[in-house]
Amino acid sequence: MASSAPLHPVARQALLAALDEGWADPSRLYREGRRARLLLDAAREAAAEAVGCRPDELVFTPSGTRAVYDGIAGALAGRRRAGRRLVVSAVEHSSVLHTAAAHEADGGTVTEVPVDRTGRVAPGAYAAALREAPDGVALACLQSANHEVGTLQPVAEAAEECAAAGVPLLVDAAQSLGWGPVEGNWSLLTASAHKWGGPAGVGLLAVRKGVRFRTVPPNDERESGRSPGFENLPALVAAAASLRAVRAEAAAEAERLRGLVDRIRARVPELVPDVEVVGDPERRLPHLVTFSCLYVDGEALLHELDRAEFSVSSGSSCTSSTLTPSHVLRAMEVLSEGNVRVSLPRGTAEAEVERFLEVLPGVVAQVRERLGAPKPAEATVAPDPVPEPEVALVVDSLGKRCPIPVIELAKVIGQVPVGGVVVVLSDDEAARLDIPAWCEMRGQTYEGERTADRGVAYRVRRRA
Amino acid sequence: MASSAPLHPVARQALLAALDEGWADPSRLYREGRRARLLLDAAREAAAEAVGCRPDELVFTPSGTRAVYDGIAGALAGRRRAGRRLVVSAVEHSSVLHTAAAHEADGGTVTEVPVDRTGRVAPGAYAAALREAPDGVALACLQSANHEVGTLQPVAEAAEECAAAGVPLLVDAAQSLGWGPVEGNWSLLTASAHKWGGPAGVGLLAVRKGVRFRTVPPNDERESGRSPGFENLPALVAAAASLRAVRAEAAAEAERLRGLVDRIRARVPELVPDVEVVGDPERRLPHLVTFSCLYVDGEALLHELDRAEFSVSSGSSCTSSTLTPSHVLRAMEVLSEGNVRVSLPRGTAEAEVERFLEVLPGVVAQVRERLGAPKPAEATVAPDPVPEPEVALVVDSLGKRCPIPVIELAKVIGQVPVGGVVVVLSDDEAARLDIPAWCEMRGQTYEGERTADRGVAYRVRRRA
Repeated sequence: MASSAPLHPVARQALLAALDEGWADPSRLYREGRRARLLLDAAREAAAEAVGCRPDELVFTPSGTRAVYDGIAGALAGRRRAGRRLVVSAVEHSSVLHTAAAHEADGGTVTEVPVDRTGRVAPGAYAAALREAPDGVALACLQSANHEVGTLQPVAEAAEECAAAGVPLLVDAAQSLGWGPVEGNWSLLTASAHKWGGPAGVGLLAVRKGVRFRTVPPNDERESGRSPGFENLPALVAAAASLRAVRAEAAAEAERLRGLVDRIRARVPELVPDVEVVGDPERRLPHLVTFSCLYVDGEALLHELDRAEFSVSSGSSCTSSTLTPSHVLRAMEVLSEGNVRVSLPRGTAEAEVERFLEVLPGVVAQVRERLGAPKPAEATVAPDPVPEPEVALVVDSLGKRCPIPVIELAKVIGQVPVGGVVVVLSDDEAARLDIPAWCEMRGQTYEGERTADRGVAYRVRRRA
Repeated sequence: MASSAPLHPVARQALLAALDEGWADPSRLYREGRRARLLLDAAREAAAEAVGCRPDELVFTPSGTRAVYDGIAGALAGRRRAGRRLVVSAVEHSSVLHTAAAHEADGGTVTEVPVDRTGRVAPGAYAAALREAPDGVALACLQSANHEVGTLQPVAEAAEECAAAGVPLLVDAAQSLGWGPVEGNWSLLTASAHKWGGPAGVGLLAVRKGVRFRTVPPNDERESGRSPGFENLPALVAAAASLRAVRAEAAAEAERLRGLVDRIRARVPELVPDVEVVGDPERRLPHLVTFSCLYVDGEALLHELDRAEFSVSSGSSCTSSTLTPSHVLRAMEVLSEGNVRVSLPRGTAEAEVERFLEVLPGVVAQVRERLGAPKPAEATVAPDPVPEPEVALVVDSLGKRCPIPVIELAKVIGQVPVGGVVVVLSDDEAARLDIPAWCEMRGQTYEGERTADRGVAYRVRRRA
């Protein structure tokens, strides 16, 4: 799964060793303190080397989230005079978007850079955002790779565009740092150790020399005043050691996992009807693949896969506490129902992937069966046309949750003549994303939405 | 040493077990996630039981410092309407004082409650502070016990005084939670796991139901929205397990350590001349004792003790990056030069304490020798009085650091007649604290300071 990985054996060893050697306070003068200081310095040097920065440019934080919060806040404070605008992509990790929201609530302004259907920001998009900003831009943020669909972002290009505008770029490298350093001339970088198989409780924040940065108080003297609180030394040591270890294996393992993901990307649409595999097929993380299944309830699908001992995540509305599809899928304007995110841990066996491909079709069919989803054929069967082509057929899906509105739309589309219209009434957030996505997949014409007395009316014209 | 302790064996076991069971994301639906959730819930229940609150009142934070920052910020934000005044004692941990400073910088106001020479706030002091506050008080903070001198604070009384005024009380229980729950009707409580032998990277924040609290954004959905970032599950599990374990041993171990500290408190003044043992002799933590040695350089003393394999801390100016004595010793108005803080880890052997008592006198004598400190006798020898009793003898100690100004004062005091005056010119921050303290210890009259062309002139009248 994408949100964490088992502890790397090297991390485990280093953690155990450091538990004995590294319990003391590195800021103390006596021997245990000095020994702790040496361990801390060594961990910092190793991490800095892997990041590609100077040791004195890097601090350890209690989490990747905290690195993002404090990195953005410090850069915004340091550039207060330049302006209060923050530029982010629409598909950043929630930690970045939450910080942006807090900045807006505090009177700052935010520009959201859109992405294409693969989840990638267009080259030149950051330059445009900086050019068009009505006020001074303090900071721009761009993830190295997307955490839900695996699409790599054009970080080096964005860094050039930002440099040209004199704006620092913060790169959230949480997803990619274990695979390799972030290329290009970034200004700030954040990462999270448990994403590369390191321990939880360790984030990285790198701030290049020369980048204006002012830590937002309160803070103490630890980590150059940039990350307060007693250093979690054993975890830091384990984080640095495991980063070095996964990097040593990265090239070979990336190629292997990439092959497995290619297989999933190719086979799933062949094995399962009405599936949309999302994310860039080429410029992507080696281990991550995401697809959405039409007419499927994401939560039911996850539970069935879990029963088959596959641990996957989902960006479907039914799997989120807010009952809205993931902001990434929304920004990409792709199907969100029946969404499955597969993240292959290092060392995943090919046999496991084959077993997944064996199990998936039956599981999806079973969930669709239960929901009374239309058979792939069904939707395209054209029955007797109704006499009046212009009559719009209205489907009341009010109070019904994803994927029911789309299923009901699919069931009736064949009952209106080609050129006829179906209007779906729905108060489910997912419908806004999934009805247009369905039209795209089915070659029907989506004619837009308008607010109804209750919920929203989505208008679809039958094309075939 | 006071700022950390070796990992408790139980913590180590729990950590290892949780490394295998608890790496997954507790917010996920699949089995590893659900298992992680169970571990997290169990750790929360155990910690809440030890704290004496409901599990849903307690969240885990990445450090005690972060618990203090976020606890105070959340309580201040939640009580914004009541006012913007924060009441703290003058001897709180720096994390509390840093938060207070940040609050002031942000336009808030702060009242500092003074302490007596034992480091204890007077009963009624909080009631007085609340009564005399010119504006609305949002929050009051009081440590359960002081981290440098071990003095217990009247938390239960302060809680009553705050309750009577309708003001919530936040108790920083970092020093005492391992020894027992905090008594009295506190509103918020913070603690730090590595202080009780748990792992680094874990703090506790308890907020009683009914206490107005608003997390300051950015934040995410983790830990009831009160502590963002991926949960450090193995560490949380180890923290809870070790808290339970140390509590089981607490009563017996406290009595044993108390005996050893009593021995240090009694013997040190007998073995070493010109020593002031500070802190409340009765109402104190079982394992912590602090004393200051006249005419001694704290850093040199620490190094000598370290060579003898004793790991102690110091609040002397020469051991701090800012070259000022610890704010705790300043607030207590006690001697800060040659300050030694001994914190006995659980299980400390009596023989170790005896060895310390054997080594200490020689080490102190050696350091004093090197500094040319006056022999205990010397200072009291009265030589031929100078003819003019009213002439003030001026000692220029400008540019000299603690303990030199006090040493030079002691050397010349005998050269003025009884009733005569010595003026010490010093630009060392420690002199402001240590010259009056020396007068107190030596029965001389401190007549105050005034700013000189360079540094400060401290006026001392010879009484004997």
